[in-house]
Amino acid sequence: MRLYEKSPPIPPEEFVRVEWTSLKEYVKEVFCALGVPREHAEIVADVLVTADLMGIESHGVQRLKRYTTGIKNGSVKPRAEIMTVKETPSTALIDGGASLGQVVAYNAMKIAIEKARSAGVSVVGVRNSHHFGIAGYYALQAVRENMVGVVMTNSEAVVSYTHTVGRNMGTNPIAVGFPTKTPPPILFDAATSIAPIGKIELYAKQDKKIPLGWALTPEGRLTDDPKEVMARKGSLLPLGGLGEELGGHKGSGLALVVDVLCGVLTGASYGMYVKHTTGKEPANVGHFMIVVNIDAISSLDLFLDRIEEYRKYIKSLKKISESAEIWLPGEKAWLTMETRMRIGIPVHRGILKEIREEGESLGVEFNVKVLKETA
Amino acid sequence: MRLYEKSPPIPPEEFVRVEWTSLKEYVKEVFCALGVPREHAEIVADVLVTADLMGIESHGVQRLKRYTTGIKNGSVKPRAEIMTVKETPSTALIDGGASLGQVVAYNAMKIAIEKARSAGVSVVGVRNSHHFGIAGYYALQAVRENMVGVVMTNSEAVVSYTHTVGRNMGTNPIAVGFPTKTPPPILFDAATSIAPIGKIELYAKQDKKIPLGWALTPEGRLTDDPKEVMARKGSLLPLGGLGEELGGHKGSGLALVVDVLCGVLTGASYGMYVKHTTGKEPANVGHFMIVVNIDAISSLDLFLDRIEEYRKYIKSLKKISESAEIWLPGEKAWLTMETRMRIGIPVHRGILKEIREEGESLGVEFNVKVLKETA
Repeated sequence: MRLYEKSPPIPPEEFVRVEWTSLKEYVKEVFCALGVPREHAEIVADVLVTADLMGIESHGVQRLKRYTTGIKNGSVKPRAEIMTVKETPSTALIDGGASLGQVVAYNAMKIAIEKARSAGVSVVGVRNSHHFGIAGYYALQAVRENMVGVVMTNSEAVVSYTHTVGRNMGTNPIAVGFPTKTPPPILFDAATSIAPIGKIELYAKQDKKIPLGWALTPEGRLTDDPKEVMARKGSLLPLGGLGEELGGHKGSGLALVVDVLCGVLTGASYGMYVKHTTGKEPANVGHFMIVVNIDAISSLDLFLDRIEEYRKYIKSLKKISESAEIWLPGEKAWLTMETRMRIGIPVHRGILKEIREEGESLGVEFNVKVLKETA
Repeated sequence: MRLYEKSPPIPPEEFVRVEWTSLKEYVKEVFCALGVPREHAEIVADVLVTADLMGIESHGVQRLKRYTTGIKNGSVKPRAEIMTVKETPSTALIDGGASLGQVVAYNAMKIAIEKARSAGVSVVGVRNSHHFGIAGYYALQAVRENMVGVVMTNSEAVVSYTHTVGRNMGTNPIAVGFPTKTPPPILFDAATSIAPIGKIELYAKQDKKIPLGWALTPEGRLTDDPKEVMARKGSLLPLGGLGEELGGHKGSGLALVVDVLCGVLTGASYGMYVKHTTGKEPANVGHFMIVVNIDAISSLDLFLDRIEEYRKYIKSLKKISESAEIWLPGEKAWLTMETRMRIGIPVHRGILKEIREEGESLGVEFNVKVLKETA
């Protein structure tokens, strides 16, 4: 097997490699200690550690404290009371009861899958939820049932809508997953901003500059300093960048579409009214999911044959340079996951300390297995 | 009323202003002369002239000849035989019978709307169609019924997938429309490339440079020369641009998602196998539509109230400069349409000559009303 990591730990000596199942177990115990039912803690731990496995560290255990803080401060209810507000055979509106976004989204997707199984297609809107981690996780639930899964969420505002300044729009990601005959599945999962805010945090922690074009100062000046963005509440730019010349209005427009579906339509908050998970008030995040049962449109066998052809088509395209590599959406994340299941997840020493202390304060024994003292 | 045009005719002396209903009538007669049934010719003419009204000239009557040539060459069948291949109460797979994409898409959307009206949500996949003009047109069909309309199509390859060169992916647009209490509706309608190929054609015709970052030479060099792109079969870049630094993989990934839904899933062609409308073989373009009945998720009245609030929210954001203007998706196009319904559509003299000659060759009288000899 080829070992590959989409985001290699740099510098390696600042990282420790840990065994992934022990990390997941530990995270689960931390949530249990906060009163989250065991089966729900299992979901949250799986979503967080899957992000780390996939090389999306920005959404991994580095965010554990965000969720535990939310529970302690009262914005996040540890015991989910998820309610179906409205329902037809192919649609549902769910109220997440201000509980953990991962638990809400996981269950909403389960409902969407069952509805699509019988109706052919389903949409499920969700309100009163929280930040749910990586959108792709829930799209993969549908993919495992050989269906097409579409997942969107709005999120607290950190992006500037085109021709504006300040934090007024979420990074509002869109994930779309398609099953394949053999892994990896095709999994598009992207914020509608150029970069997610978690990446700015990571660059700041690692003392690295960000590319010019990712972020603005509060005054609307482009900046390459991630610390300035974090400290002065700068904003991210939508996909397509500043203004309209390279399509910034398209990235902004996509973010707006996600906000209308997840926020306006469901009755959740939108724009800068979406609160942060760590506050005292529920964030009232909204999600929106669409599941398509492939057999209702085509036949699964035919689709699986054609998607293999399509994969070969993409891989056979002419590369822009000798050293270039052509990737399908989700392929890098999948290879990273397989790699890290074998050699462990690199966790930054600072983050490992943070989650250890968080557990200690709750009386949870730190039993994460370290495989290597450097990554 | 404020007069506004999103793409003012430059230079004005090269344009003539024509009365829009007479232009539409004329286009309809041209299609009728080619054996297209009157009610279908009406649809095609309406789609083309609506593009011109909305300031999307790249998809307007400048493309009339593309469709008439397709009919003459045999790729496009003038009499539509649209078949429903597979169907459930909320889904359908449609075969367009290689007829005009506008007629196919219009009818597919009608089916999608009726299904969503009773089932709450619907998806309709379409294969064996042709280039259908502006995706937003069909999203607006759903919007007029107070539903959410999502429309995608693949198209002949003119984009380079990330890390590749050459024309290997369509511009694969996505349109999403939402109803509002008062016009304009919210209408996101965007190619997943930075610019559509029609814009490159227009810049070439107008002897203008394109911004560096829109297009590549066949060797993979950035170019600002639209004529080089057209003559040497250069390619367009996906939203997010070259490589991954500013998110080109996200634009490419969106294009791929559209291609899988419209092409792979429906049984239509994909990537560079999608043919051009003007050839001898059917293009086998695929479309994909989703309609959501707002009342199935929320209530229409509540949604319409909330979308007004949302519009005010966006409009109240802090502008990046004194002179900046904040736009909602589709707003510029709508204002342009209202303006041009009043003062006429500016048509380039060269294009007017082209469509006049096309009609003459078919024995159609040129009765387009010229309102002003310069725009």
